[in-house]
Amino acid sequence: MDFAHSQKTQDYIARVKAFMDEHVYPVEEQIYRETEELNPTGDWTKWQMHPFIEPLKKKAQAAGLWNLFLPDDKLGKGLTTLEYAPLAEEMGRVLFASEIFNCNAPDTGNMEVLYHFGNEQQQEKWLKPLLAGEIRSVFGMTEPDVASSDATNMQATVEQDGDELVLNGKKWWSTGLGHPNAKITIFMALSNPENDKHSQHSMVIVPLDTPGIEIKRMLSAYGDFDAPSGHGEMHFTNVRVPKENLLVGLGKGFAIAQGRLGPGRIHHCMRSIGAAEKALELAMKRSLSRTAFGRPLIKLGGNGERIAQARIAIHQARLMTLHAAWKIDEVGVKNAMTEISAIKVAVPKMLQDVVDMAVQLHGGAGMSSDFPLARFAAGARALRLADGPDEVHMGMVTRLELKKYQ
Amino acid sequence: MDFAHSQKTQDYIARVKAFMDEHVYPVEEQIYRETEELNPTGDWTKWQMHPFIEPLKKKAQAAGLWNLFLPDDKLGKGLTTLEYAPLAEEMGRVLFASEIFNCNAPDTGNMEVLYHFGNEQQQEKWLKPLLAGEIRSVFGMTEPDVASSDATNMQATVEQDGDELVLNGKKWWSTGLGHPNAKITIFMALSNPENDKHSQHSMVIVPLDTPGIEIKRMLSAYGDFDAPSGHGEMHFTNVRVPKENLLVGLGKGFAIAQGRLGPGRIHHCMRSIGAAEKALELAMKRSLSRTAFGRPLIKLGGNGERIAQARIAIHQARLMTLHAAWKIDEVGVKNAMTEISAIKVAVPKMLQDVVDMAVQLHGGAGMSSDFPLARFAAGARALRLADGPDEVHMGMVTRLELKKYQ
Amino acid sequence: MDFAHSQKTQDYIARVKAFMDEHVYPVEEQIYRETEELNPTGDWTKWQMHPFIEPLKKKAQAAGLWNLFLPDDKLGKGLTTLEYAPLAEEMGRVLFASEIFNCNAPDTGNMEVLYHFGNEQQQEKWLKPLLAGEIRSVFGMTEPDVASSDATNMQATVEQDGDELVLNGKKWWSTGLGHPNAKITIFMALSNPENDKHSQHSMVIVPLDTPGIEIKRMLSAYGDFDAPSGHGEMHFTNVRVPKENLLVGLGKGFAIAQGRLGPGRIHHCMRSIGAAEKALELAMKRSLSRTAFGRPLIKLGGNGERIAQARIAIHQARLMTLHAAWKIDEVGVKNAMTEISAIKVAVPKMLQDVVDMAVQLHGGAGMSSDFPLARFAAGARALRLADGPDEVHMGMVTRLELKKYQ
Amino acid sequence: MDFAHSQKTQDYIARVKAFMDEHVYPVEEQIYRETEELNPTGDWTKWQMHPFIEPLKKKAQAAGLWNLFLPDDKLGKGLTTLEYAPLAEEMGRVLFASEIFNCNAPDTGNMEVLYHFGNEQQQEKWLKPLLAGEIRSVFGMTEPDVASSDATNMQATVEQDGDELVLNGKKWWSTGLGHPNAKITIFMALSNPENDKHSQHSMVIVPLDTPGIEIKRMLSAYGDFDAPSGHGEMHFTNVRVPKENLLVGLGKGFAIAQGRLGPGRIHHCMRSIGAAEKALELAMKRSLSRTAFGRPLIKLGGNGERIAQARIAIHQARLMTLHAAWKIDEVGVKNAMTEISAIKVAVPKMLQDVVDMAVQLHGGAGMSSDFPLARFAAGARALRLADGPDEVHMGMVTRLELKKYQ
Repeated sequence: MDFAHSQKTQDYIARVKAFMDEHVYPVEEQIYRETEELNPTGDWTKWQMHPFIEPLKKKAQAAGLWNLFLPDDKLGKGLTTLEYAPLAEEMGRVLFASEIFNCNAPDTGNMEVLYHFGNEQQQEKWLKPLLAGEIRSVFGMTEPDVASSDATNMQATVEQDGDELVLNGKKWWSTGLGHPNAKITIFMALSNPENDKHSQHSMVIVPLDTPGIEIKRMLSAYGDFDAPSGHGEMHFTNVRVPKENLLVGLGKGFAIAQGRLGPGRIHHCMRSIGAAEKALELAMKRSLSRTAFGRPLIKLGGNGERIAQARIAIHQARLMTLHAAWKIDEVGVKNAMTEISAIKVAVPKMLQDVVDMAVQLHGGAGMSSDFPLARFAAGARALRLADGPDEVHMGMVTRLELKKYQ
Repeated sequence: MDFAHSQKTQDYIARVKAFMDEHVYPVEEQIYRETEELNPTGDWTKWQMHPFIEPLKKKAQAAGLWNLFLPDDKLGKGLTTLEYAPLAEEMGRVLFASEIFNCNAPDTGNMEVLYHFGNEQQQEKWLKPLLAGEIRSVFGMTEPDVASSDATNMQATVEQDGDELVLNGKKWWSTGLGHPNAKITIFMALSNPENDKHSQHSMVIVPLDTPGIEIKRMLSAYGDFDAPSGHGEMHFTNVRVPKENLLVGLGKGFAIAQGRLGPGRIHHCMRSIGAAEKALELAMKRSLSRTAFGRPLIKLGGNGERIAQARIAIHQARLMTLHAAWKIDEVGVKNAMTEISAIKVAVPKMLQDVVDMAVQLHGGAGMSSDFPLARFAAGARALRLADGPDEVHMGMVTRLELKKYQ
Repeated sequence: MDFAHSQKTQDYIARVKAFMDEHVYPVEEQIYRETEELNPTGDWTKWQMHPFIEPLKKKAQAAGLWNLFLPDDKLGKGLTTLEYAPLAEEMGRVLFASEIFNCNAPDTGNMEVLYHFGNEQQQEKWLKPLLAGEIRSVFGMTEPDVASSDATNMQATVEQDGDELVLNGKKWWSTGLGHPNAKITIFMALSNPENDKHSQHSMVIVPLDTPGIEIKRMLSAYGDFDAPSGHGEMHFTNVRVPKENLLVGLGKGFAIAQGRLGPGRIHHCMRSIGAAEKALELAMKRSLSRTAFGRPLIKLGGNGERIAQARIAIHQARLMTLHAAWKIDEVGVKNAMTEISAIKVAVPKMLQDVVDMAVQLHGGAGMSSDFPLARFAAGARALRLADGPDEVHMGMVTRLELKKYQ
Repeated sequence: MDFAHSQKTQDYIARVKAFMDEHVYPVEEQIYRETEELNPTGDWTKWQMHPFIEPLKKKAQAAGLWNLFLPDDKLGKGLTTLEYAPLAEEMGRVLFASEIFNCNAPDTGNMEVLYHFGNEQQQEKWLKPLLAGEIRSVFGMTEPDVASSDATNMQATVEQDGDELVLNGKKWWSTGLGHPNAKITIFMALSNPENDKHSQHSMVIVPLDTPGIEIKRMLSAYGDFDAPSGHGEMHFTNVRVPKENLLVGLGKGFAIAQGRLGPGRIHHCMRSIGAAEKALELAMKRSLSRTAFGRPLIKLGGNGERIAQARIAIHQARLMTLHAAWKIDEVGVKNAMTEISAIKVAVPKMLQDVVDMAVQLHGGAGMSSDFPLARFAAGARALRLADGPDEVHMGMVTRLELKKYQ
């Protein structure tokens, strides 16, 4: 047992930190402020990226800090889940940093799907530009009219009609749908209702400009539209794509989804840990610099203890997430389900609590957009629902615990 | 000891409920949606009220449900704090309802200040149009550059210069500042640094169009701009008003503030209880109507227990707030400080927790603006800071507990 | 709505307090210490009451502070549930005080059963000596071999055999079974399995010296045997009593139980509130008198905030319990089930938390028998299981909430 | 980074588990029951070990599973803190298991002190019989009359008088003082008040039969006397020992204590994790075997979620403790203070919560001595105070966090 990162990992951490120090932190606040100004609510079709983002992407690519999430040696950097995890943490400290390194959700998950399950043509056509950071993609799974915590509730349909697939249904909370570069979606839908429960669904790649797709709106999460990326609602009415756009085969949707979600949850959780570290750092700075009743805030009442509790909570969460990453690498997602569900339950809640503490120490400023705290809070809240709500993951942990007694 | 509301109170509750049933609930969702559409972020100066609001105010006035908060028989309805409390709860269920009944913060607090502490001219000039619902007002207390949890940190100044008062300083989180009808602010500032700690500040009434006032921006709280009312930041540079605008006298600011905040905290807490009831109602409806894994959500895992915990928490919070209202009426704000601080600590936190539970049962929809939950959450979060953060109120409770042992 | 106790109640509170001040508090610690010394574990049959107890009972009786719990004018003092509640709180501050006033569980519940459901002979034979404090009684409901949270699991049986009833089965957690004065038990058992679920059980009065009853042992709860009262396990093997000992009739057990438990839960909760007040008082005194790092404990870190949280929690719990008492008086137990279950869930948990805080402020002393805190903790823990575990009461609250939507 | 135990560690885990399976678990319940019967409260001087214990110790010694905690190759097994940690977990599952392997507190800590700081004669005289399991020892630090959370409060004194040391003062919560084999204590006391704060105290080895030592009593912790080991109170009145009994030198007490406590906290926490695993196991078995309302308990309400939460909490706690052990091995106790304090705060609280959940699923049985749960609860509660209360460790974490910003 060895809790030290490998030399390779340590090097990558140092390089990502150095890049953040040199290129990202100096413009962090400016980009937050101007992104907000550039993207008022009201008409999401006018959303635009901050002009610094593309140049920063170029720099990251040039620095060899690109597609770090992808375990492939050539297309990515050949990092394991465990090796990538601490890099995701660094990126999680800044709301827009993942995109800079082409490591942002849901593109990472979609690239993994295309990498593992796409055929050569599909990879050429869609994986390549995604890996190049030229286009962005979304994922259509959650639906507005059913409890999507039970994925088998899915009502959208895909039917084969000759050489075409016909898609119908509504999807929402499709992250990134508002992004100017969003070009394709992976659409998951019911194709084979006659099959057993986990072989009824399929995944299809769909260009977003295909006729029949209507993007209804962007959704706010706790008031945060997450512009210019956004979370959107899209309606599919007799949308037709060639059957070459089908991933793997009809009925293979759940099998693909399983593989997609494991590393994705590590990424989300590690970014959450980075966000929590940032929140704690902001809390420390604020509570040292502001004074009430004659003392810096950190010396007042239970504030110091709350700082300690935050440090302990972050520390536990990080170890548990790194362990889950290690377990995925060692025995695969299927054999690491307790660990994956455990972090999915514990880490976003930890972030929510740490941010809440940090906001309280900031006073009103903490709730405003002057700090990233409110957006961290929105992100944490969303994560407690995304990729399976807490309750579903607790159910998974309980079920696997029960198995030991049967 | 009698836990039944008086017949008079019961009648008012019934009348407010009937009004809500007839006039408010039928348009609730439409007003939410359209208010959001009418008021994109970006340029708050274009914010506008939903066209239904003024007609609803007229109806409430005609129905005799107007200025219910004011204990005066003629100007209000002569309701005690305890009698008004359950009416505030009813209003708290709908984000815009308090305004309909001319019972919205901070106008209620400002009207109370003018009622109790304004002289005849001040009342004629500013209380009258406020009571008529013709203008709105704001309150300038919190400042961006200091920890405002310690009110004595206040840096804004007011100096007498002949017949004029000269005001300087920055204020933010001034609720209602973005409202099209906002016409005046009460400005609290340091006037007598030579006095003892609680006699150094003064309150001045200032028309918002006075030269030297710059409204910098509206602030979002957890992404919520609360348009078209808003929470604003305003800078005062050598703002001059006649000394007739001074309330009571120089150095009397804290004395006035004390009286203002007691009933205001009851109002906030009762509205929070209404919001929690609404959140619980939404949670019940959603979890009965949505199905996962073959059962309605409420039958799954710990969901039922969470509903029970919410009911118990709301029930406790309501009794405690009604008791605090009763105590204010019986022995005055000064002798009810434990009770007032207790609700201030417990009730917004309760709302935050109940709403979080309701959001979780709604899935993604709960975070969006399709339901008022996210805005309730923002309101609850803000309340844990407004009018003194939790920690300050806990300190008050501790201090009064200590007194018993001295 | 009026939160002040009636003059009558205030007088009784003053009298009970005066009695406690004069007769109980001066010997409190001595009785704790000596009772422990008198009653080592090992052989419960040698348990004895502290010699001060009987004289204190005589004094309480002489002072007219006797059987205060019983709503009857002649047999008790004609106090309503609400009027008695604050007296139970005063008694709850001292572990043995309820017995002094002949208001201790389970005798109170048993006396209520005999009062409401016993016939004249039964009342003459058993209610009279109980009201006189000459004998004590136990209640046999919980069983060791089944989940007693579901009362219909009950396996003990009662069968009619001519003029006799034949009882079989095991009961445990029968409170008071170790008491030297314990003479009878009410035995609840399955008599009519052919009936509907809530008409299958009966209650029978059984003298504890009836052949076939074996008292197996006393049980410790978190190490506390609660000597000389105790919680025992008793086995019934073909125990025969005359059918005159049947309460009301065969199959009436649940109907009787329902009525018994409502006020009993008020009593338990009010005593818990008294215990919590005592724990808070001890915490205050300790944290003011002990110094660490140069300051009294209460000034260190989050200690002050924990004191405030305890005050707020007790305050909420008291109001909620008084309200439940009032509701029982106004509309009966059956129509106050949400309120009764709510306090049953919230109040013992509150006591557990407040005591835990107080223990922490006492350091090791708090865990020892030098203070009543550990026994309060044991009592709180037991209460979260007794008379229905938290989960069953949460289920009741949820069920009643659901009814509003059907 | 590698989360797998080394082969050596895995072998030791397997051997300890096999020993427990073969020799300990089969007699676990019998030993619990009979130990309780053998050791009634009342006269601790008659306490005796269960007759199985010494033979089990012999077997463990023969199996090479002896003094596993000691990092020395010859005297122990040369295991690092990290290698020993999972073995302590296994021992923590059974209340008396540590003693079987000669790995019980406080002997482990005392042996470490003698090993690291004792001179040759001291080691010959006292370390040898301790390592042989022939005698037991106690540690005298906490005092009844001061807040011992601040160790500098210590009032006991040691003065040199010629070739002798004269000891005075009171100590309590000296674990193991009631054990029939207890022969010596390490006594910590003020010797050099003229020195700086952390150089004022000394440690002296004192045979318990030295004249002037009065063992006043054994203390119960939440009703648990922990017989036949116990936690005692001892008073020293002019106790004289030769100055050869002094450890290291006058004023070196704190320096010695620092080293002693680091690994000890790992041991305590790992045993707590073992206890939590056992509690979870018992909860699983009980909730699968008992049925209410027609379903096994685990399927009811929030029970399944609570099981999941317990699993997640244990999992986090274990990783954090193993990491702290690793850090001690890598960089020493002084550089691992955040990690050590973090586990000290989090792990006992985790055990308290997990046990509370398990008790609730057991109903009344969970509180009784039929299961080890109540004693686990008492142990957890005590650990939140022992070796520094939670608050002191939170203070340490906060302080080290602050250092990053100076």
